[in-house]
Amino acid sequence: MIRTLPLFALPFLALHAVATPALAQEEVTPGSVVAAAAPGEWREIAPDDLLVMQLAPDATGEPRRVVIQLMPAPFSQPWVENIRTLARAHWWDGTSIYRVVDNWVAQWGGGEGEQFTPPALPAGVTSPLVDYVTPAPEEENLQAGRFGLIDSYAEAVDFRDGLPIAQSGDWQWPTHCYGSVGVARDLAPDTGTGAELYAVIGHAPRQLDRIIAVVGRVVEGIQYLSVLPRGTAEAGVYATREEDTPILSVRLASDMADAPRFEYLDTDSESFARYVHIRANRSDSFYSAPAGGVDICNVTVPTRPIAPDEAS
Amino acid sequence: MIRTLPLFALPFLALHAVATPALAQEEVTPGSVVAAAAPGEWREIAPDDLLVMQLAPDATGEPRRVVIQLMPAPFSQPWVENIRTLARAHWWDGTSIYRVVDNWVAQWGGGEGEQFTPPALPAGVTSPLVDYVTPAPEEENLQAGRFGLIDSYAEAVDFRDGLPIAQSGDWQWPTHCYGSVGVARDLAPDTGTGAELYAVIGHAPRQLDRIIAVVGRVVEGIQYLSVLPRGTAEAGVYATREEDTPILSVRLASDMADAPRFEYLDTDSESFARYVHIRANRSDSFYSAPAGGVDICNVTVPTRPIAPDEAS
Repeated sequence: MIRTLPLFALPFLALHAVATPALAQEEVTPGSVVAAAAPGEWREIAPDDLLVMQLAPDATGEPRRVVIQLMPAPFSQPWVENIRTLARAHWWDGTSIYRVVDNWVAQWGGGEGEQFTPPALPAGVTSPLVDYVTPAPEEENLQAGRFGLIDSYAEAVDFRDGLPIAQSGDWQWPTHCYGSVGVARDLAPDTGTGAELYAVIGHAPRQLDRIIAVVGRVVEGIQYLSVLPRGTAEAGVYATREEDTPILSVRLASDMADAPRFEYLDTDSESFARYVHIRANRSDSFYSAPAGGVDICNVTVPTRPIAPDEAS
Repeated sequence: MIRTLPLFALPFLALHAVATPALAQEEVTPGSVVAAAAPGEWREIAPDDLLVMQLAPDATGEPRRVVIQLMPAPFSQPWVENIRTLARAHWWDGTSIYRVVDNWVAQWGGGEGEQFTPPALPAGVTSPLVDYVTPAPEEENLQAGRFGLIDSYAEAVDFRDGLPIAQSGDWQWPTHCYGSVGVARDLAPDTGTGAELYAVIGHAPRQLDRIIAVVGRVVEGIQYLSVLPRGTAEAGVYATREEDTPILSVRLASDMADAPRFEYLDTDSESFARYVHIRANRSDSFYSAPAGGVDICNVTVPTRPIAPDEAS
């Protein structure tokens, strides 16, 4: 049974020893719910919402590709549009990952210190002067919290178009979870362009919600960021540029001849509702005491590549 | 200002660019609250509660030491006692870290599959037949939730003797957070001895609470576990034993001539209460919108080494 689980289900595997008996075939797990989802319950991520970052190969020559789903409307759109402009200008090519802090973030792109000499920004890329929160449409207000998730930071949490969001009062905002990508900025709130980005590689730093623009999440290759050596200079920046991880290229999938394609489990689907329920109430053999609840960042939206033969 | 923050405060640093203006001196941050704590508000971890794991040096020859605070009474004590017995028997020396799963765990010690040949367990080390929850003393019931933290998994959460705990009804249990160490086991609840352990290297897997024994947390060196390559075989085990990270030794600090010493900020102290409050309500320049809440696993209990000259 375990051997047939798709790769993204690995984190749900129990912590049992390796040679233990297989789970009974009829047991329901998050992985089995996702595997049973109907083809029509999956949504392809638009190629214009898919950012492909190619890092230099690792020490053993293994290629490292990080794929990011950009935030759909209405959240963080001015920064997302900047990111598309920067990718089309090949602005990140030749920049690097220069800061990695354990249980916090890996950060790349343009820095402002004297040790960095980022290229000039393309025309039109400036720091947006907009809020980090979005008015909740009246009909969305009704949906927020439909799964009954209890949150430590907001009045309600839910998923919208495949991404976790929070709501308090009449405002919604995207949440910082493991793998979330955000716009690094200076002390003033209007100083981030999107040229400098970070990915969360630790426990959800939800205190960053509403003060930084979340612009997407890593859907493939987060492990290439999370295993990077931690920086030893101020604020976790690498002490020397030789420690940086070079970025070979960053492209929108819509600009690539051989672009990867990805799809996520529709967060309005019946299978997704079952998935959230079983994440909160594990009933398979290992889970002798179902939790009875789950936090939003512990409900990773299932995402998978679309195989090339399906794409043809 | 930033340069004077102690190393453990790094994760609290804002995501601003490196050359930004320093924070105003008077600003209150989690780091400044901890730095201002009185010496009497710190508690030394008993040497019998400190487990020192020495890994083989990394590829550059850097030594890797992981220090674990063992869970104080009343939680998980049969397993903790097994762990002391195993350490005194030098049982882990020559074993390895053989499983690493991204956003999940790094696991080491004795495995049960055919690829492992763990040494025989010392006399007296068996799988305890006890519950994973502990009756809450009446007076503790009153304290649980004294910080008003909202939790997605339990009725109340709080800290007890330096460690995060949860409570529902009349039961308490230790929580799984980043850096927590637990006892791997088989499908049956009474199959873990403590010989096989894991550390959490991702978002808090709170669904494991009450179904696995939490026996402590990493207080130094978690980054040596979190950066390890992810395993590619079943369940994240390394495909070959050559990929394992060898464990040179595991000792109780009480059995070492040159033992490290650590102290944590007393979780009943005034400074700790201030620290929790400021974690939930960041008011320094970067935080234009304080969260107004925080989840228990985002409140890492401040811990620091006791300098050798203080120890003499």
